[in-house]
Amino acid sequence: MITSSNNPKIRLVRGLLAKKSERKKHHMFVMEGVRLCEESLSAKWQPEWILFSESLSNRGKDLVSEFRQTGVETEEVSEALLRSLSDTETPQGILGVCPLKELPMPGNPDFILICDGIRDPGNMGTILRSATAAGTQAVIITPGTTDPFAPKVVRSGMGAHFQIPILNMNWEEITAGTIANPPKRMRLFVAESEGGTPYWNLDLTGPVGIIIGGEAHGPSRQAVEAASGKIFIPMNPNIESLNAGIAASILLFEVVRQRSI
Amino acid sequence: MITSSNNPKIRLVRGLLAKKSERKKHHMFVMEGVRLCEESLSAKWQPEWILFSESLSNRGKDLVSEFRQTGVETEEVSEALLRSLSDTETPQGILGVCPLKELPMPGNPDFILICDGIRDPGNMGTILRSATAAGTQAVIITPGTTDPFAPKVVRSGMGAHFQIPILNMNWEEITAGTIANPPKRMRLFVAESEGGTPYWNLDLTGPVGIIIGGEAHGPSRQAVEAASGKIFIPMNPNIESLNAGIAASILLFEVVRQRSI
Repeated sequence: MITSSNNPKIRLVRGLLAKKSERKKHHMFVMEGVRLCEESLSAKWQPEWILFSESLSNRGKDLVSEFRQTGVETEEVSEALLRSLSDTETPQGILGVCPLKELPMPGNPDFILICDGIRDPGNMGTILRSATAAGTQAVIITPGTTDPFAPKVVRSGMGAHFQIPILNMNWEEITAGTIANPPKRMRLFVAESEGGTPYWNLDLTGPVGIIIGGEAHGPSRQAVEAASGKIFIPMNPNIESLNAGIAASILLFEVVRQRSI
Repeated sequence: MITSSNNPKIRLVRGLLAKKSERKKHHMFVMEGVRLCEESLSAKWQPEWILFSESLSNRGKDLVSEFRQTGVETEEVSEALLRSLSDTETPQGILGVCPLKELPMPGNPDFILICDGIRDPGNMGTILRSATAAGTQAVIITPGTTDPFAPKVVRSGMGAHFQIPILNMNWEEITAGTIANPPKRMRLFVAESEGGTPYWNLDLTGPVGIIIGGEAHGPSRQAVEAASGKIFIPMNPNIESLNAGIAASILLFEVVRQRSI
């Protein structure tokens, strides 16, 4: 049983939870809680190792056995030590360190989301969850956007990280690459809180990418330049704006609706 | 300047932030931050009094002057004391105590939302914000739902509380009252995570109420009984569900869409 906060695994977890630079250097991230660990198992996204403590529920203990059977190293940690690592208010007694891999984008994508400067980790996680639920084929993260593998994003993503390609790209790569170019040119629409075409008046049945800007400053100049048009959610003028996660989800599910009817 | 934590106003604020029973007893709630205080001013929802501290921004100080001009009592509090009260991580140096009043529901409502067991305060606030943005005429809160005037709900509502009627009703009142009865019978649709009619196949242009259940257990038996039908957001089966705030917003904006086209 690990009891020392100087143990190399404990030090690694602490670094991965705290810093993007550590996640980048080691190409790893941390998942916390029974549910997320279950999601990684069912998605066959095998963790490097699992740490758990005595307080773990029976469902969690069964999960630890399952990980062991699939060849994943699992190690017990003293209750207080694991609790001290946790990023959550109610730690469940299990966390895993996962390799940070990028799932491949399909060859001819026809439905993507571009997050352009989203800063709030909770919003980012919700957006990943909604994008996965809507069947979006990839989420592209531009520079200046919060790290999608930060602990709070992973937690609020509720398993989306194991299912959807999450790709870091800059605007040059986006506009020069296969996304916006022939043979199957994708139309990019940038969400604006004022002005633009009401979303129900745009045809979103062809290859389409939705760009969602940051909470405070909206989409970047490059996003506006790259887009074929502005997409807009008409609303009560007494409300300044919708939450970025809400706006993204309404637009993503409009794509689903148009393609289903 | 108030410096003692035993000051009656300070004790009242502490109670109102901590407990629903205190909010109910005094018929008051607390708003924190410059933006929310501005919203109360522009909505003419006059606070009982305002507390502020030295660190307040210039925009906030102008706001304090405006409150004074409209006859609201404002009082300075020592920096450390106001900070100790704050429910937020980055207190802005201003809070207000507001009367807890219910805005009236319009006589013949044709668009309402019923929150049936939503427990997460952040979700509840987001739902109120989205409902206001969608032009919903009232949000009804059933027993077992988180208190809509709790500090985190007020904060994430971003001013919605000053604009939309938020009414506590039990299921008997809902089904016996004007909402679901002639002369203008409203159809209630309960959101289900599995099964039901895809939302785009229901006609939502007549008088309609959307029922959103709690995050963990979904809608109550009474909600299902009161509803004319189940409304459903089709999604990728690998995702367990959408966030309750997201699901509510997608459905509310579908009502907007259907009534706009």
